[in-house]
Amino acid sequence: MTASQQRRVWRIGDWAAAQGDHDELAAEEPLEIRVRGRSVAITMRTPGSDDELAAGFLLTEGIIAAPTDLLRIEPCARDEQDNVVNATLAPEVVVDFERLTRHVFSSSSCGICGKTSIEAIQRQFGAVTSDVVVAAEIMLGLPRTLREAQATFDRTGGLHAAAIFDASGELVVSREDVGRHNAVDKVLGYGLLHGLLPFDRHVMLISGRASFEIMLKALAAAVPIVAAISAPSSLAAQFADENNQTLVGFLRDGRMNIYAHHRRIEVTSGA
Amino acid sequence: MTASQQRRVWRIGDWAAAQGDHDELAAEEPLEIRVRGRSVAITMRTPGSDDELAAGFLLTEGIIAAPTDLLRIEPCARDEQDNVVNATLAPEVVVDFERLTRHVFSSSSCGICGKTSIEAIQRQFGAVTSDVVVAAEIMLGLPRTLREAQATFDRTGGLHAAAIFDASGELVVSREDVGRHNAVDKVLGYGLLHGLLPFDRHVMLISGRASFEIMLKALAAAVPIVAAISAPSSLAAQFADENNQTLVGFLRDGRMNIYAHHRRIEVTSGA
Repeated sequence: MTASQQRRVWRIGDWAAAQGDHDELAAEEPLEIRVRGRSVAITMRTPGSDDELAAGFLLTEGIIAAPTDLLRIEPCARDEQDNVVNATLAPEVVVDFERLTRHVFSSSSCGICGKTSIEAIQRQFGAVTSDVVVAAEIMLGLPRTLREAQATFDRTGGLHAAAIFDASGELVVSREDVGRHNAVDKVLGYGLLHGLLPFDRHVMLISGRASFEIMLKALAAAVPIVAAISAPSSLAAQFADENNQTLVGFLRDGRMNIYAHHRRIEVTSGA
Repeated sequence: MTASQQRRVWRIGDWAAAQGDHDELAAEEPLEIRVRGRSVAITMRTPGSDDELAAGFLLTEGIIAAPTDLLRIEPCARDEQDNVVNATLAPEVVVDFERLTRHVFSSSSCGICGKTSIEAIQRQFGAVTSDVVVAAEIMLGLPRTLREAQATFDRTGGLHAAAIFDASGELVVSREDVGRHNAVDKVLGYGLLHGLLPFDRHVMLISGRASFEIMLKALAAAVPIVAAISAPSSLAAQFADENNQTLVGFLRDGRMNIYAHHRRIEVTSGA
């Protein structure tokens, strides 16, 4: 259950011939998520915060909508490697296992299936309604706060990070994972497990690129502002347009680009 | 069928207040892959080289093993957006649709299901046997060649790249995509469609991180050396160990780290 592993490495560079040495790598292991004992997903993830990952996954896939839908998440004791968790839901929650298994076999990082499903998902979650406004100066300071909170990243260089901030720039939670979507599921799952949802006065920051899938997951928790250190995709921007989400990209080095619903970012005269 | 889209953007930085402007974003759209008319995958991808993407996907998932297994890949004419392709296989190819649909509903970027499946996959493809050796100087020059070959990347900052090089450092093919696994499927699919497989005297270079899934896909095409600009994961290194793959990480700025089977990288006395 560690987020990194020591590993022997040969370093080759301008300054020397090959050197034997040790390096730390981001840990990657499969996690199987079961609902009422039935397998609904297996994801390659960095071990740790598995309960948050599973809770966030169930939320962002629309399987549960409120903390009361989820009675408990626990490791499957028979699995010695702790790579299986089972979610026990409230009896009244209807799980459409058929719908889940219809998303068959995508090698993509996204569990959705074409335009029809995209539209169905949008209707499922509903557009953002929050009128929160965040100062541009606060936005520009978020990457530094995230970096300072990232313990493992500096050692392995192999992890994505996601974080939730409030409108004053205070860090609520940050999590890391080899999978960007897993890091997002973990911070949203943390919110669900701690009764903090919806994150509708908040900013979600991710360390990499903003894809459609990231915007979709943010929508499940009603996050009004999504910011990425790197570039967004075209579909991410289109999805943000349609769902009243503010989308910020290239948030780094004291700059940012706003791709959708820029009114939530306040630029004061001094900035 | 373009790899990027123009988009209005507001730029905010130290030097000025918000400016309205235009930016180019990496295009992201769903592609549905059908085999004999049955849907086997939907992936979020950057449009372009869809036939290569589908061919590479079929190869790396073990559905086909040789060019003769694949009769043709063509767009589904009824889909006006060209977001569906159908693969016609040789009649003797047996497709285990049941196995495909057993990988249900993973939000991961990886279509596999835990340790058991990992072992099954390893047995399916077999370990690398190539004894190719590549000079360290040649390895160190590959990132520059890839960058020069990347047309869209510089404009959008939102694309992953994958490339195949021969042992002398000559570029065979490079492809880009919002999904790293798609970029890999495209270069391997190119190899399949052009009769160039196996890539067993070659290096595969990817622009981002090396995960387990990347190593698995490389194994499907017998690629002996996989190099990543960024970090590998622990499972990528372990998989490389077990399958006789040379794994290089942090290949940039005249340096690299070798994580597995370093004998294929030759460091001469002058380096």
